[in-house]
Amino acid sequence: MRVLLHGAKGVMGKNVQEVAKQTEGMEIVAGLDSHTDLSHPGFPVYGSGVEVKEDFDCIIDFSVKEAVDALLDFAVEKKKPIVLCTTGLSEAQEKKLQEASKQIPILRSGNMSLGINLLQELLRIAAKKLYENDFDIEIMEAHHRRKKDAPSGTALMLEKAVEEGIGEAMVKVYDRSGRDTAREKREIGMSSLRGGTIPGIHEVIFAGEDEVISLNHTAYSRKIFAKGAITAAFFLEKQEPGSYSMADVLK
Amino acid sequence: MRVLLHGAKGVMGKNVQEVAKQTEGMEIVAGLDSHTDLSHPGFPVYGSGVEVKEDFDCIIDFSVKEAVDALLDFAVEKKKPIVLCTTGLSEAQEKKLQEASKQIPILRSGNMSLGINLLQELLRIAAKKLYENDFDIEIMEAHHRRKKDAPSGTALMLEKAVEEGIGEAMVKVYDRSGRDTAREKREIGMSSLRGGTIPGIHEVIFAGEDEVISLNHTAYSRKIFAKGAITAAFFLEKQEPGSYSMADVLK
Amino acid sequence: MRVLLHGAKGVMGKNVQEVAKQTEGMEIVAGLDSHTDLSHPGFPVYGSGVEVKEDFDCIIDFSVKEAVDALLDFAVEKKKPIVLCTTGLSEAQEKKLQEASKQIPILRSGNMSLGINLLQELLRIAAKKLYENDFDIEIMEAHHRRKKDAPSGTALMLEKAVEEGIGEAMVKVYDRSGRDTAREKREIGMSSLRGGTIPGIHEVIFAGEDEVISLNHTAYSRKIFAKGAITAAFFLEKQEPGSYSMADVLK
Amino acid sequence: MRVLLHGAKGVMGKNVQEVAKQTEGMEIVAGLDSHTDLSHPGFPVYGSGVEVKEDFDCIIDFSVKEAVDALLDFAVEKKKPIVLCTTGLSEAQEKKLQEASKQIPILRSGNMSLGINLLQELLRIAAKKLYENDFDIEIMEAHHRRKKDAPSGTALMLEKAVEEGIGEAMVKVYDRSGRDTAREKREIGMSSLRGGTIPGIHEVIFAGEDEVISLNHTAYSRKIFAKGAITAAFFLEKQEPGSYSMADVLK
Repeated sequence: MRVLLHGAKGVMGKNVQEVAKQTEGMEIVAGLDSHTDLSHPGFPVYGSGVEVKEDFDCIIDFSVKEAVDALLDFAVEKKKPIVLCTTGLSEAQEKKLQEASKQIPILRSGNMSLGINLLQELLRIAAKKLYENDFDIEIMEAHHRRKKDAPSGTALMLEKAVEEGIGEAMVKVYDRSGRDTAREKREIGMSSLRGGTIPGIHEVIFAGEDEVISLNHTAYSRKIFAKGAITAAFFLEKQEPGSYSMADVLK
Repeated sequence: MRVLLHGAKGVMGKNVQEVAKQTEGMEIVAGLDSHTDLSHPGFPVYGSGVEVKEDFDCIIDFSVKEAVDALLDFAVEKKKPIVLCTTGLSEAQEKKLQEASKQIPILRSGNMSLGINLLQELLRIAAKKLYENDFDIEIMEAHHRRKKDAPSGTALMLEKAVEEGIGEAMVKVYDRSGRDTAREKREIGMSSLRGGTIPGIHEVIFAGEDEVISLNHTAYSRKIFAKGAITAAFFLEKQEPGSYSMADVLK
Repeated sequence: MRVLLHGAKGVMGKNVQEVAKQTEGMEIVAGLDSHTDLSHPGFPVYGSGVEVKEDFDCIIDFSVKEAVDALLDFAVEKKKPIVLCTTGLSEAQEKKLQEASKQIPILRSGNMSLGINLLQELLRIAAKKLYENDFDIEIMEAHHRRKKDAPSGTALMLEKAVEEGIGEAMVKVYDRSGRDTAREKREIGMSSLRGGTIPGIHEVIFAGEDEVISLNHTAYSRKIFAKGAITAAFFLEKQEPGSYSMADVLK
Repeated sequence: MRVLLHGAKGVMGKNVQEVAKQTEGMEIVAGLDSHTDLSHPGFPVYGSGVEVKEDFDCIIDFSVKEAVDALLDFAVEKKKPIVLCTTGLSEAQEKKLQEASKQIPILRSGNMSLGINLLQELLRIAAKKLYENDFDIEIMEAHHRRKKDAPSGTALMLEKAVEEGIGEAMVKVYDRSGRDTAREKREIGMSSLRGGTIPGIHEVIFAGEDEVISLNHTAYSRKIFAKGAITAAFFLEKQEPGSYSMADVLK
């Protein structure tokens, strides 16, 4: 499989390169990035799609939302699948993406790791059974000190999985300080810890009468997201046009 | 529901009484126990089945294996269901139990808590997916300092659930000290910690490349087992003769 | 040691009675409580100090702040030491307590458990060394769903110990959601989880570059606070008038 | 500070190079390694000490015990300090090292991370107080699947710190399976988990009556050991001949 790497110069772009070197049966043949520094990744990096001369089978994207429109146009024109790992798209972009997925296969996920995607599946089952049996649910995540947004996109994905399991909307509570009220059943506390260089910890706690179950995911490096994207690319290469998620890959 | 409590004077018998008081719609009408002390639980406690005069709908048992044969005879004679929480039965007893379950409903589980039973279900799913994707699996349990057997029966149940998920037998490793070999894929490390009054912690760890998932259950008191047994009794009262498990209750 | 139990009918009063039964060398000779129900704890319970006829060596108090003024007057009059476990005193009460401690020994602590008090000592050392070496500090606590205040008084005690170690005031952050700024060095995130019947979990996390240290305390029942109060009473009985804390007991 | 890197081609040698690039005020001027591959680390790598032409201020060593004798001879001859991170030395080597430390400063530690070294300090305090108060102590460590030895050297260091705190020798228990005896007070259970690519988790658990304290260290990459070695080199450069440990650096 020949891959075009969109966002080749970013932190995740470099992670994809590192994992790609250790992956049999794939090669990054070219990169796209508006930052064209002087480093030599071992393949040409272009500033825009029109410059790309190499032929390729799939695009892996870890970029910024500003670059996504041009990427979609380019992929549709070339009729190539995209593993799209950029988050925070606008509504207009979401719509454009839906349109594009009628012509090419597009896979998206807020978190590319196998572990987190499995966790969502487990959470749907656990939340249904435990919520019915009067367990309360709380979510905790911890990330490095430079992460600005909170809660993490992944924590929100996990909370969504909990709601899907329960079958109704919950009330997310971000701050209990200063309140003077007992917890209500439909609350889900969302706690965000920040510090050091923690790559990412997520924990979902089910607290019942005299027993607690917790499901925990710890990332040790961001390479897991690169690895997930490459696994997704191998899957996507063989699919018909449409909209896919990591859940499809892991089936 | 009128309950006959077998093993009424034991630690778990007392826990069942305590939880029963807070449970609507049930009443313990009599007890059976070879230890007939002078305490007054609020219902008569007999030394053998023939003495029982009260009518009842279900038997809850937390006793010792030596008492199980007489219990089965008694229940079959009375045509009453049993929630059987005694573990470590002999092969002959297992056979007798199979026979009995043709005539009365019998529910058994090595661990009556809702949480542990759900954990088994999650483990089957997680183990299958993660073992295929090159995750290693280890099990850790911690209990109070007086617990003599190791690993706990519950840890063995969880290990069994992992094997069911994977679809093949694993090699349990109890001691890595002094070995000088790397871990093999089919191993499952089983670690048992003992100390203080810990009621019971179980953790199953799935360690992959740069990510770790763990599923954890913490018991805060043994009342959860009493509560599970009572939930099971409500379920069993309405069933046909047969062999049941907590998984049937939680469906 | 003969103990007068103030707050004898409350949840903690009952815990003290239970632990006292298993403690050699002490006896509860009388109780004080405004709630005079019909239960018989095995000693007389009076509605006010003037009624107390029994002689005693020490008072153990788990009551409410409204009852503390009368308690202080009573203890000073009788010249008896108090282990005072009620929290949330007003400034006027704090002053009154300071005055009283010139005449009788008074021991106070926001958390009577040996574990939490040791944790404070460890935190002073750890916080100093790790903060200097660019570790970030976050505090997480979890309690049962009925607990109304957040963060817990114990979490605030632990945060205070961290500040004492560092030697300067920190900025407590209770909610990171919706912010879009990286963490600053002087922040301490305070997360409060609520659910089920969790008796109390406290965790202090030190996150540095590629390593994390965490110090964790888990309570399995509220008996640990009763036990701490009794240990403190044995200590206090022999002291001169003055103001004491659990740190003095544990020296 | 100009550093000579002993074991320049090994995994840890590469980690030292990576961290050195981000550290102001130091430079690796040469390397020593018996494996002389074709990679270019940006400084010359020699097969033996006699070839080294560059002047340097300190040696950082992450090698194998077979290389330590020649290293000690070389350092004594050159009168240069060594940060010696190789473990498993023979008794003869230990003696040789003691002799060498009369002429040059030598710093050794089984684990170079700041976190683990602080943990030892905390453990001495905690173990003393908690063991006296009837807490039981257990140690758990988890490492990647390729680690052959168990328990980890660091777990043994932590166990030693516990013994120093208590002031007497403990009995290490590696396997509780199949035993049928309750835990004895002087036991310390040592559990070793192996799986995936876990860089290193160490946890010391103090389990008392209804409360548990645990002290946990998680490494996210082996760079922390390189960082510790570099911090130690800055310290050692200014010291008189003698034997030092990370505890001296962290004072």
